[in-house]
Amino acid sequence: MSAQQNQAAAENSAAQTITREEIFEAHEGGKLSISVDNPIETKRDLSIAYTPGVAQVSRAIADDPAVAATHTWANRLVAVISDGTSVLGLGDIGPAASLPVMEGKSALFKTFADLDSIPIVIDSKDPDEIIDTIVRIAPTFGAVNLEDISAPRCFEIEQRLIDALDMPVMHDDQHGTAVVVLAALINAAKVVEKELATLRVVISGAGAAGVAVAEILLAAGVTDIIVLDSKGALHPDRGDISGVKADLTERTNPRHIAGGTQETLQDADVFIGVSAGKVPEEHAAGMADNAIIFALSNPDPEIMPDVASKYAAVVATGRSDFPNQINNVLAFPGIFRGALDADAKKITPEMKLAAAHAIAELAREDLSATFIVPSPLDLRVAPAVATAVKNAV
Amino acid sequence: MSAQQNQAAAENSAAQTITREEIFEAHEGGKLSISVDNPIETKRDLSIAYTPGVAQVSRAIADDPAVAATHTWANRLVAVISDGTSVLGLGDIGPAASLPVMEGKSALFKTFADLDSIPIVIDSKDPDEIIDTIVRIAPTFGAVNLEDISAPRCFEIEQRLIDALDMPVMHDDQHGTAVVVLAALINAAKVVEKELATLRVVISGAGAAGVAVAEILLAAGVTDIIVLDSKGALHPDRGDISGVKADLTERTNPRHIAGGTQETLQDADVFIGVSAGKVPEEHAAGMADNAIIFALSNPDPEIMPDVASKYAAVVATGRSDFPNQINNVLAFPGIFRGALDADAKKITPEMKLAAAHAIAELAREDLSATFIVPSPLDLRVAPAVATAVKNAV
Repeated sequence: MSAQQNQAAAENSAAQTITREEIFEAHEGGKLSISVDNPIETKRDLSIAYTPGVAQVSRAIADDPAVAATHTWANRLVAVISDGTSVLGLGDIGPAASLPVMEGKSALFKTFADLDSIPIVIDSKDPDEIIDTIVRIAPTFGAVNLEDISAPRCFEIEQRLIDALDMPVMHDDQHGTAVVVLAALINAAKVVEKELATLRVVISGAGAAGVAVAEILLAAGVTDIIVLDSKGALHPDRGDISGVKADLTERTNPRHIAGGTQETLQDADVFIGVSAGKVPEEHAAGMADNAIIFALSNPDPEIMPDVASKYAAVVATGRSDFPNQINNVLAFPGIFRGALDADAKKITPEMKLAAAHAIAELAREDLSATFIVPSPLDLRVAPAVATAVKNAV
Repeated sequence: MSAQQNQAAAENSAAQTITREEIFEAHEGGKLSISVDNPIETKRDLSIAYTPGVAQVSRAIADDPAVAATHTWANRLVAVISDGTSVLGLGDIGPAASLPVMEGKSALFKTFADLDSIPIVIDSKDPDEIIDTIVRIAPTFGAVNLEDISAPRCFEIEQRLIDALDMPVMHDDQHGTAVVVLAALINAAKVVEKELATLRVVISGAGAAGVAVAEILLAAGVTDIIVLDSKGALHPDRGDISGVKADLTERTNPRHIAGGTQETLQDADVFIGVSAGKVPEEHAAGMADNAIIFALSNPDPEIMPDVASKYAAVVATGRSDFPNQINNVLAFPGIFRGALDADAKKITPEMKLAAAHAIAELAREDLSATFIVPSPLDLRVAPAVATAVKNAV
């Protein structure tokens, strides 16, 4: 099959096996419900769960705030918060339209980490307003999973919330993605028998995911990273770079390569695509022997796997219909579970690295070029990640 | 038994039968959980509930906001919101300490009306900030149950939210209480064979509950109402009355009685206590024949039932250990269920009156001086209230 045929087949396969009707039927009335831990059936039950009994618990928290952590659900509750500005591939579709995604996220938290969470969508795009809102309602929950917030706003919002709140805060589009990419890269490097520290890595995309992937790879010891934004490689000679990208420019591109995928992919060991920018076949052809290509854009990879595999020994995508699916669900349920179980106040770089290694470890048994990460449905993953994260606190 | 003995016995009975240990054990880890409506077990499930399938639902909402009402949980989700400024009898104990009460409320919504709700507590006492916060997160849910917000702030906050939001908003401490009081009064008047319209009613308390009780009784046709605040009867000659109370002063106290419980209870048919102010026995003694006393302060009624019953034919309290318990749980689950089922944008006076009549109706079969309202555990109540409310939209 040609690339076009392959892509069409993949899209058709998804479209044919899951119909629009089926998707809408599954979403009718939403995907979540509240359940009551202890049934209220008698006057006694009512007097315990509500007045007058509950007053004793409220008074105990008023006297000692630590009791809130043990005697409310807040300490096991993640707020899944979005402003709807960067939802999946759909962009800025607003808070109400982002809600099905947040419900889905809550469903995954429950399914994989037995962690309760509530979607909260915010009708504001102003970072100050978003931060104020979250800080004001913060006694409601024990951790914040930021979701689908557009770059560069997401960097400021996340950092200011980390500073303001005494609880784990993580923008999943940044760090969830970064953790799974690192896990996959650890294993892919093993497959091709290269050392992480000496890899030449090109990251296409300097948004939420691209920046976080660069950061975690630097933290993991990768030294030669080039990050591309829509105008090419981040490079000190460029005059149009500010904010988070400026900071990254100082710590990447040690060989000072300028240009796009053609120049930067020449002799590169790894390509990681986290933007929609396409990679022409002839640029991929310039990569080093035993290259690694992660083409993670959804639903259309930067380069289709059948083309990529002509020039790379290991190929991964974000799609479930190709091998090596890089899916955040491998990371976020376990990361939050571990952080909450450990009563951590921050999610540190060490905790993220530990999560990546735990995910990589679980694919090690069956490791091959087409199996570098566990299945997103592997129920061992979240508990293993949680334990690793907890131990890294 | 003397009043003191009776009170002590009642308090002991509650204290003895439900221990502090039992209450704290039942609250360990909180009282609520999230459940996932459709299990996620296969790649197909994952592709429907999360990416890529969920994108179709998000896009549909972006194209037509009405889809959010049918294909997210928001339209069946009540936000139970408090700032923790007036929690039970405990006063201003703050948002974290109010959380167990809000969880309890959510448990009651689920138990009695099969309605999902999430507690949200706000760390601010500033009405502008509270309103802004709720308005910003409003796409998250379909209705707002305000709870335990101190007067007079609660009046402004509720009214401004009703104006700002396109969804049902109700401060339960006001209207939930008022609805159940009216239901009880309708039946108590039947027991003593008096007409609602000609009753002389004294309401002690001009806070959240007192004001709302006065309003609903006026709406129900009661014409002779005197409202007492801590300084005595609301009266046009007083120079210290403003805001909601000033408005109420114009519409109550038609005989212009000044003074406290002594003066106002003289020949009164009904006493409704919704403050902590005690009623001396000699003042109750001045009431009309076949009087009605609702002494609703918790845990210490304004006058104990054994004393009240010397001078009143019907006595009710807020406590579960005496007959005729006036409990908000008879009202709020059905009111919100009915409002959401009807897709109502406001909770109107007509809907509250309908709710009161529906509650009263359910006690009619066994109506007696010691049975004027159904049991708070009567599972017929919320559906009957919901239907009545829905029909009143």
